[in-house]
Amino acid sequence: MSGPGAPAHRVRGSRPPHGDPVVDRALSLLAAFDTRHRYLTLAELSRRSGIPASSALRLAQRLMAWGALERGDDGRFSIGLRLWEVASLAPRGQGLRQVAMPYMGDLAEVTRQHVLLAVREGDEAVLVDRLSAHQAMPVLYHVGGRLPLHSTGVGLVLLAFAEPGFQEEILARPLVHEPERTAVSPAELRRTLAEVRREGLATVRRRAPEPLVTVAAPVFAAGGRIAAALSVVVPEEHAEPRLLGPAVRTAARSISRGLGAH
Amino acid sequence: MSGPGAPAHRVRGSRPPHGDPVVDRALSLLAAFDTRHRYLTLAELSRRSGIPASSALRLAQRLMAWGALERGDDGRFSIGLRLWEVASLAPRGQGLRQVAMPYMGDLAEVTRQHVLLAVREGDEAVLVDRLSAHQAMPVLYHVGGRLPLHSTGVGLVLLAFAEPGFQEEILARPLVHEPERTAVSPAELRRTLAEVRREGLATVRRRAPEPLVTVAAPVFAAGGRIAAALSVVVPEEHAEPRLLGPAVRTAARSISRGLGAH
Repeated sequence: MSGPGAPAHRVRGSRPPHGDPVVDRALSLLAAFDTRHRYLTLAELSRRSGIPASSALRLAQRLMAWGALERGDDGRFSIGLRLWEVASLAPRGQGLRQVAMPYMGDLAEVTRQHVLLAVREGDEAVLVDRLSAHQAMPVLYHVGGRLPLHSTGVGLVLLAFAEPGFQEEILARPLVHEPERTAVSPAELRRTLAEVRREGLATVRRRAPEPLVTVAAPVFAAGGRIAAALSVVVPEEHAEPRLLGPAVRTAARSISRGLGAH
Repeated sequence: MSGPGAPAHRVRGSRPPHGDPVVDRALSLLAAFDTRHRYLTLAELSRRSGIPASSALRLAQRLMAWGALERGDDGRFSIGLRLWEVASLAPRGQGLRQVAMPYMGDLAEVTRQHVLLAVREGDEAVLVDRLSAHQAMPVLYHVGGRLPLHSTGVGLVLLAFAEPGFQEEILARPLVHEPERTAVSPAELRRTLAEVRREGLATVRRRAPEPLVTVAAPVFAAGGRIAAALSVVVPEEHAEPRLLGPAVRTAARSISRGLGAH
């Protein structure tokens, strides 16, 4: 497998100024689904995509014929398995996951909690994989879901090793810590990023909804470019970040080697 | 999560007679990628999709603007992470995987080999997930890849519990065992399917490229409809199908319960 390519810098939800409206409308239908809306009626599909019901139905039928959408016995639409098949070829999604899987398994076995793998997409982190032990505390992260760069373990790692111009762009924005909504000081974030680069690790503590600790490390692709971030999320009472750090770094280095990094 | 919906019965690669050619052409570009072609030049994309290079480029640019395709530094196209994100919402792909993951992990830990999860799509099985131990022997199965129904563990389970009309359709076809290319006797396949239904298990031995044994069990969704098949693939010398059967069935039942089956 080749290493994951450079992420195209693209703001989420932005629409190009010109283009083929039919293809864009078809893509808007797909974008109407999210983790809380996996099944949509025609009316919901129309409302969420902004496409009138009659056109939405016509387009949905085209997408169904190919297998990009499916329709259940109750008439609701969902994303089709054929789209999932094609999309599983995304080098930065399934390809990365395939290389990372056995190492993530080792880490999950050792920590008995959650192991996350994320890549940067535009100005957020996207969760590419999650392995969770049965007895792990519940977390809100879903594969395919998004996480902020400035306040999560994987996000800080992806930001710390991103190109400097992109880091400055993020540092120039007004940022807040969720869920407390307290402002992030750019000077402090800059110090944190320098520390993450120096240590090769990001450690983030979160109090709500439950106290937990995340320890994250960078995964590099061929050429030394950052490809992904790997993290372990554990309840605070079990956390020994001093011991977790080497485990996460070791697994991240193994995945990097699998991607062709030296 | 709702249970996976009924698979739309659709023959692979079939094209609807009418429809919007632009949407169909865009989908053809996506379909040009497969597990052996994750990165394509414009010329390859054009040749594999049958779309002239100039239109292919224009369409590819639309798909790139949205994030359905990405383009590397070397100019080659690949499936984009944004498409992977949306596709991860497919109930029969990622949704099923999320429910199955911890049970598959248990099974992989116990067997130290490969655990496969597959669903039926048209007249083939599609591999939705694979967990493999480090020390597991190499196998050719890829997530998103396809397997025949009549000669694989997961395939036989999916076929045995499919609606009778569909089973008859498959039984009426000329079928062969790969890679030996020996004909499958319909009477024998019919007996095998009855046995799989009776035992709740399919056991398949394969001699080439290495001797291995697959033990597969059905996963049911709410309403008792078959949703998926779960299997363990082990080298023949390690295989104790008598002991593997209960483990696979137990994990499959746990996943079924997670999908709302009783």
